[in-house]
Amino acid sequence: MTDIGVGLIGTGFMGKCHALAWSSVRAVFGDVPQVRLEMLCDLDRDSAQSRAATFGFTRWTTNWREVMADGKVDVVSITAPNALHRSMVEEAAKHGKAIWCEKPLGLTLEDAEAMCLAVNKAGVASLTGYNYLRNPAIIHARKLVREGSIGRLIQFRGFCDEDYMADTGLPYTWRCRVKDAGPGALGDLTVHLVAIARYLAGEIDEVMGDVRIVYETRPDAEHPGRRGKVENEDQANALLRFSSGVQGLIMSSRVAWGRKNHLGFEIHGSTGMITFDQERMNELRLFRHDGPREQQGFTTILSGPAHPPYGDFIPAGGHGLGFNDLKVIEAAHLLRGMTGREKIYPDMDEARRIERVIHAIIASSRQGKWLAV
Amino acid sequence: MTDIGVGLIGTGFMGKCHALAWSSVRAVFGDVPQVRLEMLCDLDRDSAQSRAATFGFTRWTTNWREVMADGKVDVVSITAPNALHRSMVEEAAKHGKAIWCEKPLGLTLEDAEAMCLAVNKAGVASLTGYNYLRNPAIIHARKLVREGSIGRLIQFRGFCDEDYMADTGLPYTWRCRVKDAGPGALGDLTVHLVAIARYLAGEIDEVMGDVRIVYETRPDAEHPGRRGKVENEDQANALLRFSSGVQGLIMSSRVAWGRKNHLGFEIHGSTGMITFDQERMNELRLFRHDGPREQQGFTTILSGPAHPPYGDFIPAGGHGLGFNDLKVIEAAHLLRGMTGREKIYPDMDEARRIERVIHAIIASSRQGKWLAV
Amino acid sequence: MTDIGVGLIGTGFMGKCHALAWSSVRAVFGDVPQVRLEMLCDLDRDSAQSRAATFGFTRWTTNWREVMADGKVDVVSITAPNALHRSMVEEAAKHGKAIWCEKPLGLTLEDAEAMCLAVNKAGVASLTGYNYLRNPAIIHARKLVREGSIGRLIQFRGFCDEDYMADTGLPYTWRCRVKDAGPGALGDLTVHLVAIARYLAGEIDEVMGDVRIVYETRPDAEHPGRRGKVENEDQANALLRFSSGVQGLIMSSRVAWGRKNHLGFEIHGSTGMITFDQERMNELRLFRHDGPREQQGFTTILSGPAHPPYGDFIPAGGHGLGFNDLKVIEAAHLLRGMTGREKIYPDMDEARRIERVIHAIIASSRQGKWLAV
Amino acid sequence: MTDIGVGLIGTGFMGKCHALAWSSVRAVFGDVPQVRLEMLCDLDRDSAQSRAATFGFTRWTTNWREVMADGKVDVVSITAPNALHRSMVEEAAKHGKAIWCEKPLGLTLEDAEAMCLAVNKAGVASLTGYNYLRNPAIIHARKLVREGSIGRLIQFRGFCDEDYMADTGLPYTWRCRVKDAGPGALGDLTVHLVAIARYLAGEIDEVMGDVRIVYETRPDAEHPGRRGKVENEDQANALLRFSSGVQGLIMSSRVAWGRKNHLGFEIHGSTGMITFDQERMNELRLFRHDGPREQQGFTTILSGPAHPPYGDFIPAGGHGLGFNDLKVIEAAHLLRGMTGREKIYPDMDEARRIERVIHAIIASSRQGKWLAV
Repeated sequence: MTDIGVGLIGTGFMGKCHALAWSSVRAVFGDVPQVRLEMLCDLDRDSAQSRAATFGFTRWTTNWREVMADGKVDVVSITAPNALHRSMVEEAAKHGKAIWCEKPLGLTLEDAEAMCLAVNKAGVASLTGYNYLRNPAIIHARKLVREGSIGRLIQFRGFCDEDYMADTGLPYTWRCRVKDAGPGALGDLTVHLVAIARYLAGEIDEVMGDVRIVYETRPDAEHPGRRGKVENEDQANALLRFSSGVQGLIMSSRVAWGRKNHLGFEIHGSTGMITFDQERMNELRLFRHDGPREQQGFTTILSGPAHPPYGDFIPAGGHGLGFNDLKVIEAAHLLRGMTGREKIYPDMDEARRIERVIHAIIASSRQGKWLAV
Repeated sequence: MTDIGVGLIGTGFMGKCHALAWSSVRAVFGDVPQVRLEMLCDLDRDSAQSRAATFGFTRWTTNWREVMADGKVDVVSITAPNALHRSMVEEAAKHGKAIWCEKPLGLTLEDAEAMCLAVNKAGVASLTGYNYLRNPAIIHARKLVREGSIGRLIQFRGFCDEDYMADTGLPYTWRCRVKDAGPGALGDLTVHLVAIARYLAGEIDEVMGDVRIVYETRPDAEHPGRRGKVENEDQANALLRFSSGVQGLIMSSRVAWGRKNHLGFEIHGSTGMITFDQERMNELRLFRHDGPREQQGFTTILSGPAHPPYGDFIPAGGHGLGFNDLKVIEAAHLLRGMTGREKIYPDMDEARRIERVIHAIIASSRQGKWLAV
Repeated sequence: MTDIGVGLIGTGFMGKCHALAWSSVRAVFGDVPQVRLEMLCDLDRDSAQSRAATFGFTRWTTNWREVMADGKVDVVSITAPNALHRSMVEEAAKHGKAIWCEKPLGLTLEDAEAMCLAVNKAGVASLTGYNYLRNPAIIHARKLVREGSIGRLIQFRGFCDEDYMADTGLPYTWRCRVKDAGPGALGDLTVHLVAIARYLAGEIDEVMGDVRIVYETRPDAEHPGRRGKVENEDQANALLRFSSGVQGLIMSSRVAWGRKNHLGFEIHGSTGMITFDQERMNELRLFRHDGPREQQGFTTILSGPAHPPYGDFIPAGGHGLGFNDLKVIEAAHLLRGMTGREKIYPDMDEARRIERVIHAIIASSRQGKWLAV
Repeated sequence: MTDIGVGLIGTGFMGKCHALAWSSVRAVFGDVPQVRLEMLCDLDRDSAQSRAATFGFTRWTTNWREVMADGKVDVVSITAPNALHRSMVEEAAKHGKAIWCEKPLGLTLEDAEAMCLAVNKAGVASLTGYNYLRNPAIIHARKLVREGSIGRLIQFRGFCDEDYMADTGLPYTWRCRVKDAGPGALGDLTVHLVAIARYLAGEIDEVMGDVRIVYETRPDAEHPGRRGKVENEDQANALLRFSSGVQGLIMSSRVAWGRKNHLGFEIHGSTGMITFDQERMNELRLFRHDGPREQQGFTTILSGPAHPPYGDFIPAGGHGLGFNDLKVIEAAHLLRGMTGREKIYPDMDEARRIERVIHAIIASSRQGKWLAV
């Protein structure tokens, strides 16, 4: 494959993020195929046109099916609202396109299962946008775990908190409805945590959830004086049991004042501990019960060239990657996956497994008991 | 009451801590009665004698009943192993002594209930050793919560981790047996967390526990080559529901490498958040959604004279209290309680309520379902 | 100006950084002209050719003069070794190109003065690579200072430490020679600090320097068994006096183990303080003596959309920019400067003033007395 | 010596601190002589009487000469205002008392020299109150330095900032006059830094000072509407040269908003670095260039029993000492010094050397050149 044609659907937060990733990936990594920015799609005509110009796409459209059907497009970035993911993925798969789809896959577990099926049936490459797994600090955490640096794992605790819905005055919007936005904090935040938990500590067998809508109504912007009823979750906590026997605990909130991207974890091992917080994404903290006790403590490891692929961005440690860089790493991974050089992870099958966990958490919370995933 | 005679049982970690508190309390606070160090008790004759000399006690004994019966003793500090607490409290109450008993009250909930009953029946003053509640930073946190600085409470998350049992090579001892040491991490650590949770967020109605013995056997020091079976918990997590509707989550571990006194919390409110970690016991972090967004963030408040009773120790902020100082504050509180100037908290009734929560957590974990406390 | 042709000289650390910036700038900012990647130059033929392909340049050369003379090139990025900067800038100016030159301008103050002269004479736009000034956190710091948020400035303290020469076993190279690399830590690091000091606190009038070669010789890689004599500085400290009366103090080291990009400052004002460290580049700490004393403390402000131009990269706060993003902001600034929409800062005139300070520090250190800049 | 009689002069910040130290020292350390609290002196009759009662002193007086002359007093704690130190020390020495004198020794270098002479002539034990040297974290830092954990020392940087004079509205008082309070920030703060610098990095040969009165006048409380002229320093920076060749830099300010006890340092070595900040007094940060680079970073060492004499206070790590505990360690050291078991440090001779440094800094600043100490 000499070069790769890209179609991108969406020009919002993630849309721009994908556009930037596609623009930079070959300059950063060198060893990936050349990328052609073929077609950009946005429902809004002006956005589509103007963003195509600034993002550097050759063509634009307001009809996403055109992207899927386009002969010059090899891979499609799907960053549209979650409610559209399923149709888009199915269509892309039908046309044999490689797929880079933002998380969560869909609004329901049924969606996720269907999408996975479509992709598998079509035999196309697929990658889901769990960008935090690309952070060199987290990749390093996994390496430490695999090498036994902290011994046998005994506990995983994770958190994922933001405050984008913390303001009680925020209006009622589609974000508050299950049929438009899916399961609230669980789809926005908890899935990231589950992705990390699985990446670091393996399969999750059972969950005991406790989810909560904290602000039950919000002012309805479309009907002044009325309030809309919020349908999806503001907070989601859960106890976990991993196949390995590791005990787990996760918590997430979209109404946690002061938290902007407070996504992280503690992994307890029999000889050490690792902690991480994405708000300081270039730092990993490691404790090892090793050497003289008087010198033991948590070591703050600043990301650097010793933590691939940091060095592809910057040859000097401690200078720091940013959020958008993670997406560039994702794009490289997908390109290598498309050419068979790397096994793609998390593909749609893994994404489906992640979503099974959050839907089990919701069901468990409603039933008030432990459920198998 | 012109002065107060003190009896102290135990000369270990907490025994020394009480001794230091009694020695300093009047010099620190000035407004409390004079204290006489009357009698020190330790089962070991040499310890009793030598520590009486260094701690400044007039007399010593190896028979704790002597302390309880002594006419010059007005208040008894009980820092013996947990298994002895009940008999000692019952005896002290019988003799009409005021009681300062370390936590947890006993090994079982039955113990706690009996002790509470004995104390109430005798009408004596009682204080339990939840020293962290004395930290000016935590007192300030409570004040902020009460004043509505972070709005309506919506979530409480707490952690209490240490690594005193993290070394898998540590021998099997009495600490590993329920009948000698009670419920492991729950009695040592979780109770502190529950005390703080109740102090800050009120009554806990329901719990869903998940407790775990991570290291099931340990090398038996008394029988070389054999291993003893550990009976009490290494890790204890729980979901909580407060009466106020606040959602809760607590976690504790005695096998968490690198954690020395990692006891803290996050309280999420509708307009802000407070976080705290006892390993940095002189710092409180406060976020308030207030003022221009570009200047919002977590403020690290260093304890100082604005946070009573810090100023009774040091007139300059940021110099820092230590762990032992918290016990001095406790002693002052008890003395004021004995003279009717303050209502004692947490008294034995509150301590019993705290322990109900941890026993409910254990039962809930075994039954795999939510339980009312 | 419809679009801008770019020539880039150098493919190392900074060369790649510029290439990435040019690739992304329009996608990030939208409001800047289209960029054409016209010609890439590297002395090494293979590097030139292969990097042109991966960076996306249309043409490549090993002769930098071709870039300067090229009719399709409007602006030249100069990231070659410092010793070549002067000739390149003079040539570029002669051809009327806009210039983006990495710091420091040259090896000597004479170089800097000559370059500035050439640029002014030619009347071309010029920008020097003080990328840290582009950090939204530092831009915000300046805004706070300007608005009087911390009152009248009374002290500036800055540090800039790395450990790239800390290993005593590192070989003797061109980096150790004044004629090839200029003044060591002062040219690599101190200039950044001076740039920030001037940006935040204004003109520096007098300096008292104390510079030091810590490791006087290093193993000569080309002559095994021999050691080369290091000529330029490992550590540079200085006392400063600003025109405004502010007292100053700066320190920098290239042999500071553990420091990777430890570049930061404290600005003391009559009503507050601001602190910053580039190793946590998305955080600014602000203390204001304001409101109830019991709630005062340093507030950690996470960069977000409230701190332009963060929001052009990511619409959500706390997600974090990376080092390479700063260069994108620089590129946008240069493009706007070239079209007259913004006044370029720091241009070559400002860069010359910065370098005057470091050369005054060196001279002052040798003479052991305060010197006017 | 079976027991030790204590006289204490002063009941303010440091007076209370000494009283608490004397009350607790034997209970904490066990191996020191018994202490008798013989006589307390305060110029204010009510304070003397009431504090004697609460601190536990047998007798009190308003005439400090009585304390010096008292037959039952073996050691005198001098915590009176600095202006009185000299007469008190001379008198105490004359009576053969051991002396625990707060820093700085006097208002002038002449005072310090005279006091040292008096003490040496009398041959009495003397200890000056550089309590921060007692911090187990700093003792550990010294041990690491001595053991070569960070290799050969190459740089010492220290800071000591508070904000007790930062409020420009604070009235003009005796603190602002040289003849009453000595050299301002240098006597209050810089001396601590010099003590630590010498403790960790050895003798200081030369200094280049830059001192500053930032707020030249303050409102005169005694003469409303008028302003008093401040005579002593608000800020003091200095470049240092140590005998060992180590380069140094220190800074201190009493007008640094937000800083409460921001006293700390960085020691750069040829193989590592140590950093410390007294506001987090139970933490030491250590970087060692050792082991795989991917795991290198600063390790935060929490004080614990591995860092003597922490374990004499608390047998569990991470629980934290407080500021007042440092004074208890000082008292134990003095008691052991009086009985010949330890060599007292810093004695009056060391204190004099410390003060020579600050007076050299002032002189150097006035003359604008490097001065030998």
